[in-house]
Amino acid sequence: MSIRIGIFGYGNLGRGVECAIRQNPDMEIAAVFTRRDPSLVKTVFSDTPVYAADKVLEFKNDIDVMILCGGSATDLPVQTPSLAESFNVVDSFDTHARIPEHFGNVDKAAKASGKTAIISVGWDPGLFSLNHLYAASILPEGKNYTFWGKGVSQGHSDAIRRIDGVADARQYTVPVPAALEAVRSGSDPELTTRMKHTRECFVVAEEGADLARIENEIKTMPNYFADYDTTVTFISQQELNEKHGGLPHQGFVIRSARTGAESENNHIIEYSLKLDSNPEFTASVLVAYARAAYKLNCKGDCGCKSVLDIAPAMLSPYSGSELFRYL
Amino acid sequence: MSIRIGIFGYGNLGRGVECAIRQNPDMEIAAVFTRRDPSLVKTVFSDTPVYAADKVLEFKNDIDVMILCGGSATDLPVQTPSLAESFNVVDSFDTHARIPEHFGNVDKAAKASGKTAIISVGWDPGLFSLNHLYAASILPEGKNYTFWGKGVSQGHSDAIRRIDGVADARQYTVPVPAALEAVRSGSDPELTTRMKHTRECFVVAEEGADLARIENEIKTMPNYFADYDTTVTFISQQELNEKHGGLPHQGFVIRSARTGAESENNHIIEYSLKLDSNPEFTASVLVAYARAAYKLNCKGDCGCKSVLDIAPAMLSPYSGSELFRYL
Repeated sequence: MSIRIGIFGYGNLGRGVECAIRQNPDMEIAAVFTRRDPSLVKTVFSDTPVYAADKVLEFKNDIDVMILCGGSATDLPVQTPSLAESFNVVDSFDTHARIPEHFGNVDKAAKASGKTAIISVGWDPGLFSLNHLYAASILPEGKNYTFWGKGVSQGHSDAIRRIDGVADARQYTVPVPAALEAVRSGSDPELTTRMKHTRECFVVAEEGADLARIENEIKTMPNYFADYDTTVTFISQQELNEKHGGLPHQGFVIRSARTGAESENNHIIEYSLKLDSNPEFTASVLVAYARAAYKLNCKGDCGCKSVLDIAPAMLSPYSGSELFRYL
Repeated sequence: MSIRIGIFGYGNLGRGVECAIRQNPDMEIAAVFTRRDPSLVKTVFSDTPVYAADKVLEFKNDIDVMILCGGSATDLPVQTPSLAESFNVVDSFDTHARIPEHFGNVDKAAKASGKTAIISVGWDPGLFSLNHLYAASILPEGKNYTFWGKGVSQGHSDAIRRIDGVADARQYTVPVPAALEAVRSGSDPELTTRMKHTRECFVVAEEGADLARIENEIKTMPNYFADYDTTVTFISQQELNEKHGGLPHQGFVIRSARTGAESENNHIIEYSLKLDSNPEFTASVLVAYARAAYKLNCKGDCGCKSVLDIAPAMLSPYSGSELFRYL
């Protein structure tokens, strides 16, 4: 029998989950839930059923795991604890500072209902978190580094679009090659924010807008751009659509550490991702952890977990002796 | 209270474990056990106690986890099941084809004694295994690739030393850069053994030995060299000692896979290690999994496990809310 997956919220991430489930023969899509009018939602595959979000509790017995595809700012803090009262749930909550609070809320709901929840699933937080943990646990005397990009930051793109006179924008985060190489060399450099990443902005201005003012507002924007070397290039909407339509991303987690009686030996552990589609990859991670949530709940292991609490074998459709192939 | 670690077998790996424990404040060395005369064994740190291997059962109540540092050919298949009757154990058994059999033997002993065992810990099998599993579980439509090197293969070095007229030798396994790049590009190449790695041999010949015969014997040796492009360089013992005395190694696990409604997007997950000292790194992995064995046994989770069965959080000296820092 297949694991029946519900998709709650249907944007780029939800569409990615819909595609990813097709790649996993032990799973099927039970339904998509949306706050929009279901008849207006066009799914990737025409046979995917779509229902109104407020009907979700009617599907309590028809869904094994609900994958939440809403945003971390306002959707997930409410939706994940609420749905954990009735479903096994997986979300990609990524507001780092609020994870302990979110974890507590979801844990309380899931423990009360006997359901299993896995939060903050994706690549950062998610796969990057567990790689930091593995590397630091194995090599205690060292430093962890994270680099992002080259890739599109949707948050930074949105910040530019909020500037007066900006019609559209796409922002790329780019790691500084010399900084990456210094880390890989084992020299354990101290790196400031500015030394690690640059920011490349492609901006479509409204007709007649003051380009110099827009460029200055971007470059001096606190938190987002002021601490970085930022370049701004004005282009047409057509060029933006043609050349900057995708959502690629990359990232690197590197640990540089020492062992030996005199700490004389250096070791580098590097984990990297190069993704054509950030939302489709994140969706694939969510789907693998949905399998884990289902397996754990079948074993009676309820409450809230993070990726750090999940054994790798739980992600696999294989089990027991079939897994020896990986050893 | 510290986790008290025993080291069973004292070569390069045992010395690495002795050093690694010093880097973990929650652990201490209880004792080293050796089949040699303990009074002749010189440990890295002068206060490390050394006992004869046949006294090990006297330490049943003084050791929380025994790390086995013997060889996979003849030591571990006997020692791990035997010691699992009295201790929590961790080993680095790496004869891939015999892992299921070894797992079964250790599991039987550990279940009977109520102890926890983790086998085949290290980087290959070990960290590479779990990276293959994570990547394949997340991205089901793709291919996994493994590259080793540049690094010393002790098995291949030993094979050369067994040739008549060879005084000493060091063999490096070297990945072919073009093959690595082809995999990273997402082109999913089909790669033969010869296309992936070359083998570089540095050989010290005995005086008057027939160099042409030695070179030919190396290059045509089945399993070890015949399927590879192999270079043989004769050097002096002094040069071998000076330039090839270390045990560095490197390795790469790469998954190239596709997502999307039409499989239109490619993703690359890459995990790599660059190690100054292969045995010290493997020792560090063993020590982290010894902590996991101890924690699992405290929870009553006994029997044999592999790295695939262990949640990342189990490796860490931190627990619960302290682990949120990684998310």
